Amino acid sequence: MRALIVGRFQPFHNGHFEVIKEILEENTSVIIGIGSAQYSHTLKDPFTAGERHLMISETLEEAKINSFYLVPIEDVNSNPLWVAHVEGLTPKFDRVYTNNSLVKRLFKEKNYDVHSLGLLNRTDWSGTRIRERILKGEEWEQFVPKPVARVINEIDGVQRIRDLAVSDGD
Amino acid sequence: MRALIVGRFQPFHNGHFEVIKEILEENTSVIIGIGSAQYSHTLKDPFTAGERHLMISETLEEAKINSFYLVPIEDVNSNPLWVAHVEGLTPKFDRVYTNNSLVKRLFKEKNYDVHSLGLLNRTDWSGTRIRERILKGEEWEQFVPKPVARVINEIDGVQRIRDLAVSDGD
Amino acid sequence: MRALIVGRFQPFHNGHFEVIKEILEENTSVIIGIGSAQYSHTLKDPFTAGERHLMISETLEEAKINSFYLVPIEDVNSNPLWVAHVEGLTPKFDRVYTNNSLVKRLFKEKNYDVHSLGLLNRTDWSGTRIRERILKGEEWEQFVPKPVARVINEIDGVQRIRDLAVSDGD
Amino acid sequence: MRALIVGRFQPFHNGHFEVIKEILEENTSVIIGIGSAQYSHTLKDPFTAGERHLMISETLEEAKINSFYLVPIEDVNSNPLWVAHVEGLTPKFDRVYTNNSLVKRLFKEKNYDVHSLGLLNRTDWSGTRIRERILKGEEWEQFVPKPVARVINEIDGVQRIRDLAVSDGD
Amino acid sequence: MRALIVGRFQPFHNGHFEVIKEILEENTSVIIGIGSAQYSHTLKDPFTAGERHLMISETLEEAKINSFYLVPIEDVNSNPLWVAHVEGLTPKFDRVYTNNSLVKRLFKEKNYDVHSLGLLNRTDWSGTRIRERILKGEEWEQFVPKPVARVINEIDGVQRIRDLAVSDGD
Amino acid sequence: MRALIVGRFQPFHNGHFEVIKEILEENTSVIIGIGSAQYSHTLKDPFTAGERHLMISETLEEAKINSFYLVPIEDVNSNPLWVAHVEGLTPKFDRVYTNNSLVKRLFKEKNYDVHSLGLLNRTDWSGTRIRERILKGEEWEQFVPKPVARVINEIDGVQRIRDLAVSDGD
Repeated sequence: MRALIVGRFQPFHNGHFEVIKEILEENTSVIIGIGSAQYSHTLKDPFTAGERHLMISETLEEAKINSFYLVPIEDVNSNPLWVAHVEGLTPKFDRVYTNNSLVKRLFKEKNYDVHSLGLLNRTDWSGTRIRERILKGEEWEQFVPKPVARVINEIDGVQRIRDLAVSDGD
Repeated sequence: MRALIVGRFQPFHNGHFEVIKEILEENTSVIIGIGSAQYSHTLKDPFTAGERHLMISETLEEAKINSFYLVPIEDVNSNPLWVAHVEGLTPKFDRVYTNNSLVKRLFKEKNYDVHSLGLLNRTDWSGTRIRERILKGEEWEQFVPKPVARVINEIDGVQRIRDLAVSDGD
Repeated sequence: MRALIVGRFQPFHNGHFEVIKEILEENTSVIIGIGSAQYSHTLKDPFTAGERHLMISETLEEAKINSFYLVPIEDVNSNPLWVAHVEGLTPKFDRVYTNNSLVKRLFKEKNYDVHSLGLLNRTDWSGTRIRERILKGEEWEQFVPKPVARVINEIDGVQRIRDLAVSDGD
Repeated sequence: MRALIVGRFQPFHNGHFEVIKEILEENTSVIIGIGSAQYSHTLKDPFTAGERHLMISETLEEAKINSFYLVPIEDVNSNPLWVAHVEGLTPKFDRVYTNNSLVKRLFKEKNYDVHSLGLLNRTDWSGTRIRERILKGEEWEQFVPKPVARVINEIDGVQRIRDLAVSDGD
Repeated sequence: MRALIVGRFQPFHNGHFEVIKEILEENTSVIIGIGSAQYSHTLKDPFTAGERHLMISETLEEAKINSFYLVPIEDVNSNPLWVAHVEGLTPKFDRVYTNNSLVKRLFKEKNYDVHSLGLLNRTDWSGTRIRERILKGEEWEQFVPKPVARVINEIDGVQRIRDLAVSDGD
Repeated sequence: MRALIVGRFQPFHNGHFEVIKEILEENTSVIIGIGSAQYSHTLKDPFTAGERHLMISETLEEAKINSFYLVPIEDVNSNPLWVAHVEGLTPKFDRVYTNNSLVKRLFKEKNYDVHSLGLLNRTDWSGTRIRERILKGEEWEQFVPKPVARVINEIDGVQRIRDLAVSDGD
């Protein structure tokens, strides 16, 4: 069985990592779709697809996990096209794991076997909360895998988020 | 005289139907533009252009109305292009009927004869209110033509709207 | 049974008309997709989607044919998205009629029931040949339904094609 | 030294004009990028790129300023592409002047020399505030260069903004 | 009278320059649209919009010509939108000068006053021919205004064209 | 050192495989960009990005090669944006390997260290030639890695190519 999980991974955190390990217990391989791939440099989507690619592959490599396919997926801005867009970019898959209600609905209408990610409901495992911590100067490194923290520091990610938070006029 | 009316028709309701009948009293035919055609599967725009096409044509067919042209119109995201975009997709028209202030202004600047739809001001004749009723499990079928209710039920539209309303994390 | 036929209809000619009548003998209704809808004003694609819409609907109306849905379909420039794009713009359909090898293959991969149009192999029933006749000042009106010739003349279509054939430098 | 300043200029006001004169004291020429060029006819972006082009060039011409390049810049909706997009549309430049935190960050990551516009912090020098004044029928002409007021009046800009403010249903 | 001329200007040559001077004898100002603005780095379109902007404005500045507006115009890939696209990017104009048959036809259909450029029929005044000369190492500088040759040399344009001509496999 | 190689890989053949092994002798890891990712189902580009992803990752996995990043890269249709587009989708890289003259030129203008692939000049190592062999029913499996042949057969790739070769009228 090949499974698909799609997320924005802004950034890739411990919750995502646990979920992927869990998916791999029930499936032989997992396609990890990096959603909204074209967006970056905003408070909601600070990291580029390439930076997120690096965060995830370094984490999985250090954990000796090989059975994954990493695929950036740009938004297409037309929901009826989205499933076909994902299918065109990925190897064939049988199951979809997601907590996003739109993604869930779109795959169900195309008769995919869709699973929820119960695990992701812990407060600390939230991209929004982690970006907020980075912005406010609170502790954040403990909520992401070590290679992710290393990548964020290498690309000057903390300063990027703070720079983007400054408001201005017109 | 050929007239144009543009709406999102999410869904096509009794108010829209009345307006079209009224337009046909003053014009020989009407072009019905299905606006924001590429959008669907959101709470604001739940139905695809094809589903809306079906709602409208079934309604008009059952009412023995033939003198219409049904045209999906995708948004172009650049207002200076919009009137030309509509002109390219439709047979020539002389008059425009709309309550949308942007549409009104854009056609006026291109010297079209633009009319308001006084009729549409009744509270019950509102797409927003009907989508809300569907979501909350309130009565809604009485506010749309019978063929529209039939189409929405056939495509599992009520469940779609409820599925899309579930919120999730990241 | 609802059937789909997709063509560019540059212009809609007697061959297309015969095919549609034949499809309606075996199906209760037909969706007519006007392909490459965004293109016009070239020698290969002289007419706008709106002009082609008018040609087809006037022809069918004069022939008292009602059981059709007319839908402009813009190219999406990514084949894996094309079937989903068509599905989003049209009412549900069960069969596809086409002679285009790409369209045939794309629908087959999505498990549609695909039929060929043997009928269209006559030399005179060719859009390319008709556009050539118009350009060269040869007889062309006899190869298209009367309402199509009327529309082409109303929109000054013959002169448009000749104007576009003039070559220039840079 | 050739400098770049990017703004939406909705409309071009006295603050923008002062800033450009100041930039020209320290640089031999200035490229003025008209940002979000494809947008117009909304309350936030009422004027087309062409109208803004005219406002700026008439103002600079009357002030006998020649050493500028005026370039409309459409949004690309992908931040990693934005600097390359600007570079493709403009003559080479060495310095960037902006108060926008995103623009600042994007150019810094490409190693440009980025300067702030301290000057623009005065309350009256705000596009938002001027559009609000126009909408409410308050005094506004004194906050823009004379040629800008003339252009806005010629294109019926005041009425356009008021027309666009009318809200409607669906 | 304000006139419009649209060209690709790959590169801006003596023929273009003569034509602009001629247009300015009959009109108070001229809008110079740099067409196919998004293309560059091909044998047919070697120079970016920014490089072409520089070629033209340096040439006109050295000739003390001020009454022009320089506007890059990206292709929109849908002919029915093209005139509206140009109108949105430029100040209002009354006349159009062009030798391109498509441009001519599109503006005529929107009731513009369209003029031909008889002048451009000289063999030497051809972008195609000049690019060929550059590629083959023949004399080319004499066919373009001096500032254009300077810009092409500054941006290493000769080598760029030669590099692009090398063919390769897959 | 991290290197980048971009190709269309239609399909991934022995020549590509050799080149990647050679790159990995001189670099610690390689980013493999799957170019023209949005195209498929044509004679020139028969396979989807997802199918090509599978071909490459199965080949490298069976060869026990881990140090690679596989990234689909859609064309952007504007050369000045292309390098930035690649940079946004990939981890940072220091060297570029390519035989494509446009890619070579674009990266050189952004100051990358660009290398040619002398190896790829063998006649048999050509995607064009392999697609031709498949179409004509000649031997082709020996020119691609075993996992590639397996993937092509699993997805019914031979029949797809033959289906697409049938020509039709309009």
